[in-house]
Amino acid sequence: MSKKILVVGGVAGGASAAARLRRHSEDDQIIMFEKGPHVSFSNCCLPYHLSGTIPNAEDLVLMSPEKFANMYAIDARTSSEVVSIDRAEKTVEVKNHETGETYTESYDKLILSPGAKPIVPPIPGLDKIPNFSIRNVVDIDRLNQHLKGTKPNNVTVVGGGFIGVEAAENLIEAGYNVTLIEAMPQIMKPFDYSMVQILHKEMHDHGINLMVNSRVSAFEEGKIQLEDGRSVDSDVVVFAIGVKPETDLAIKAGLELGKTGAMKVNQNYMTNDPDIYAVGDVIEVYSYLYNDYYQLPLAGPAQKQARSVADHINGMTIDNRGYIGSSVVKVFDYNAASTGLNEGMIKALGLNISYDTVKIIPNDKVGLMPSGGLVHFKLLFEVPTGRILGAQAIGKGNIDKRVDVIATVIKFGGTIYDLKDLELCYAPPFGTAKDVVNYAGYVATNLMNGDFKQVHASDIRPLAEKDACIVDVREVHEYERSHIKGAVNIPLSQIRQRTDELPKDKPVYLHCRSGQRSYNAALVLSNLGFRDVYNVSGGYMGLSFYEYFNDQTTGRESILTDYNFD
Amino acid sequence: MSKKILVVGGVAGGASAAARLRRHSEDDQIIMFEKGPHVSFSNCCLPYHLSGTIPNAEDLVLMSPEKFANMYAIDARTSSEVVSIDRAEKTVEVKNHETGETYTESYDKLILSPGAKPIVPPIPGLDKIPNFSIRNVVDIDRLNQHLKGTKPNNVTVVGGGFIGVEAAENLIEAGYNVTLIEAMPQIMKPFDYSMVQILHKEMHDHGINLMVNSRVSAFEEGKIQLEDGRSVDSDVVVFAIGVKPETDLAIKAGLELGKTGAMKVNQNYMTNDPDIYAVGDVIEVYSYLYNDYYQLPLAGPAQKQARSVADHINGMTIDNRGYIGSSVVKVFDYNAASTGLNEGMIKALGLNISYDTVKIIPNDKVGLMPSGGLVHFKLLFEVPTGRILGAQAIGKGNIDKRVDVIATVIKFGGTIYDLKDLELCYAPPFGTAKDVVNYAGYVATNLMNGDFKQVHASDIRPLAEKDACIVDVREVHEYERSHIKGAVNIPLSQIRQRTDELPKDKPVYLHCRSGQRSYNAALVLSNLGFRDVYNVSGGYMGLSFYEYFNDQTTGRESILTDYNFD
Repeated sequence: MSKKILVVGGVAGGASAAARLRRHSEDDQIIMFEKGPHVSFSNCCLPYHLSGTIPNAEDLVLMSPEKFANMYAIDARTSSEVVSIDRAEKTVEVKNHETGETYTESYDKLILSPGAKPIVPPIPGLDKIPNFSIRNVVDIDRLNQHLKGTKPNNVTVVGGGFIGVEAAENLIEAGYNVTLIEAMPQIMKPFDYSMVQILHKEMHDHGINLMVNSRVSAFEEGKIQLEDGRSVDSDVVVFAIGVKPETDLAIKAGLELGKTGAMKVNQNYMTNDPDIYAVGDVIEVYSYLYNDYYQLPLAGPAQKQARSVADHINGMTIDNRGYIGSSVVKVFDYNAASTGLNEGMIKALGLNISYDTVKIIPNDKVGLMPSGGLVHFKLLFEVPTGRILGAQAIGKGNIDKRVDVIATVIKFGGTIYDLKDLELCYAPPFGTAKDVVNYAGYVATNLMNGDFKQVHASDIRPLAEKDACIVDVREVHEYERSHIKGAVNIPLSQIRQRTDELPKDKPVYLHCRSGQRSYNAALVLSNLGFRDVYNVSGGYMGLSFYEYFNDQTTGRESILTDYNFD
Repeated sequence: MSKKILVVGGVAGGASAAARLRRHSEDDQIIMFEKGPHVSFSNCCLPYHLSGTIPNAEDLVLMSPEKFANMYAIDARTSSEVVSIDRAEKTVEVKNHETGETYTESYDKLILSPGAKPIVPPIPGLDKIPNFSIRNVVDIDRLNQHLKGTKPNNVTVVGGGFIGVEAAENLIEAGYNVTLIEAMPQIMKPFDYSMVQILHKEMHDHGINLMVNSRVSAFEEGKIQLEDGRSVDSDVVVFAIGVKPETDLAIKAGLELGKTGAMKVNQNYMTNDPDIYAVGDVIEVYSYLYNDYYQLPLAGPAQKQARSVADHINGMTIDNRGYIGSSVVKVFDYNAASTGLNEGMIKALGLNISYDTVKIIPNDKVGLMPSGGLVHFKLLFEVPTGRILGAQAIGKGNIDKRVDVIATVIKFGGTIYDLKDLELCYAPPFGTAKDVVNYAGYVATNLMNGDFKQVHASDIRPLAEKDACIVDVREVHEYERSHIKGAVNIPLSQIRQRTDELPKDKPVYLHCRSGQRSYNAALVLSNLGFRDVYNVSGGYMGLSFYEYFNDQTTGRESILTDYNFD
């Protein structure tokens, strides 16, 4: 029996659902409504139009209504807003924004994929400064036209999430003076504070005026006032504070919302009305890693949900295993990827999870090969089970593959012990024989086994300030180039002969460049009877990245004689 | 109680074992013997010296005996060959090749990591032509010096495995005329015949005289004779036929070999003598995917085995989950990775495994982004379980990450149904919202579900020759540019209106560019009552790559009016 299925919203969720529905049946009538002029566009590519990486705004439009009709026999209607749902009658009311007409369309099944809208904060003076958000092709084209037309000196992005960071980078590449204002102590919540310092540095070094811990209090003509009294010259503002699910239609129709404020759906992405499904940024999803719902406005999950709904409508059993959230972003020369939980999220969500972390900085590929770089890699795992909870990787090379592997391990409930055993592709142009992921598994296993103890980059300033025994086990020429003020230098190659220079009655903190030599030194000392020995996770490089941005922007005295980033 | 541990052989296995042993104990005496002059070098990087990518041969040497002594308190002895083992006395006899002296060294535990040696075939005339193998720094330096000194016109590589292919590429980049002779119908056994045609084409297009199905019968001065009567001008020969485990020492000591001819070890990498372990290329390993032993001469597994042995010697429990084998190679502009089993291996090993495959050619990253390319991706899975057995990926971009994910899934016993659910990192510069791996999972699921049937690129020539009904569903301008001779063109956008042009009483074979539009067309026809519809897996692009090399090198008539590689 043929069905009539309406889809509200195009892009990732709606368009995928409609295409899959058609593959299930040639008989079903499928109508897709999109409020805006474009039924399918690449929203993730929008910021790249600002730099001209994608020169033509119209290239961002992926599919036209004609193409949907020809290829899928789908009736895709643009400028068509579904303004209300009559659940008893199983109809929707549609407003055609081109003609002004309103009409009614019936349905057997209704799929809601309206997405989420950018948050514009209720800050005084919004009328005094040209301001923009980035949601669709119309938005980005309008912003780009404004910039091209007015040629402003100073552009400010408010909000340091994915879109804010990508917008800031593309605006720099377009030649503007760019300020990024972030209310929190850091940008990019998928990364822990210690990791994100690499990105803070990269943005700072590329000329972005990055202001963290900064809240806008008012907009004035050509100027933004901050709560702490400072101000920033600005001709244009781009809001990238975050998005809010488009729940108006659902609320009006009496559909249930979840505790996060997004739409609530069951395991089949079905709302509390069995003939209405919802997918994409408008819903909240269940976490695979902790027992609760959260919002995950990403394109990949939206497409998967869409396919699941099309299958369920056609009688297939689907599975919904919950979500971990994986993402990646390019920040100038750096790539940064993350999956699952991080320390900041565990704290912010108040999760009662016992965990530990390891941080390593190995080579991306064999050091001899040209273009080999470093991977800053952080792994989070549950204690005592060793179950992997998340990972973050930042570097100039192929860091996404390491996080993809961890994302895969997480979905199988894998542990740190599984990582050692993974057989990953190796040849000198691609990686190292013991991959980053294997290496992280080894270090985590050693930590869990009690082979060594560690402190983190964030612990070093307090330790340095109270004259703790910090031992730099790098070679003399490395120490002479730069070191922690107050640290003593005993190279690994001399440590066995110079143990009498070290105290046995107080903690000894060992570091090298990345943490590998000092790990060996820590085991030497432990095996020689020292009881309170700590390895500084991430070593001098990790510490340099950790300290740099705050040193540069706060004017505090550095604990390092100089930085060492490679 | 302190132990005395001897390690035979440096490089990946031996050096890793020795370093790990030292971290377990400061008291143990650890001596490592290496026959050659270098105790630790990057054997995987050797071919890259020929092109000058790694300009200095000495850079290939990673660690000196002095460094082993200073950093690890390990006594590393070069030019020191262990010539025999007295298992009853627990001693080895060592020959110092620098002094000519022979001496005895006792052990509590002995680790054998002698590696494997290149096979030099017993072909007449070897004395008439300068010939080389590539095993270590001395070998590659000698070959490179010969080439630089004699400036030959023609260099021939015999054998198309990893080393042969990498050597051929680096020799082309160094400016020589290069022939690669391979006895089998294809190079690179980790790839199926249909996939490897991409690499055949790439080598052919970069000027390598690639001769498959060709066996050398004799060497003459400046010339190589083949069994089929042809000959190849050649001034120098590089053998890269394969390697053979260095079992002489083990055989002499009465240690057991396995059925593959490599050393047999138990789950702890222990030989039949409980005080003697063996790791690396000299042993055979157990397959995770089928119940038998095989040789896997790769650096990653050697390092893992070495660590396991060091742990077991120190009383720790280790796990040995078996091996799947993952590898990657760069072939000029292409990257090619594989993991697990392929069709060729299943056939060659005579494995009784019921399986099916899918081949897709999606975008590496969002098509709008600069430098986006294609990924040729083949997935092999068990029927009826859906358990993943292997994957191969070839493309110009990040293909290794997709194979790493599959390698991870295989190690967890995952299925095609698990692939759909993976949350992989996505942003436009890195991938697509529905990643290659997700997409392969969807296609495989559809195939297993019976949603569609498929034929492969290898089926098309016979079908075209017997005038089967082949329908090209690409747009008219694509068909006009190039098509299969005899195929009819009905674009997907017209297929619903033109079904009367198609026979209902015989099979219909549908193809497009990559297989995606024709999949949709196949479902349209199935849903409209056509019973015998097949999608051509990999589409016109897959077919173009499949046919090209043989068309070019055999002089046969092409079944295509022209090729289409993008």
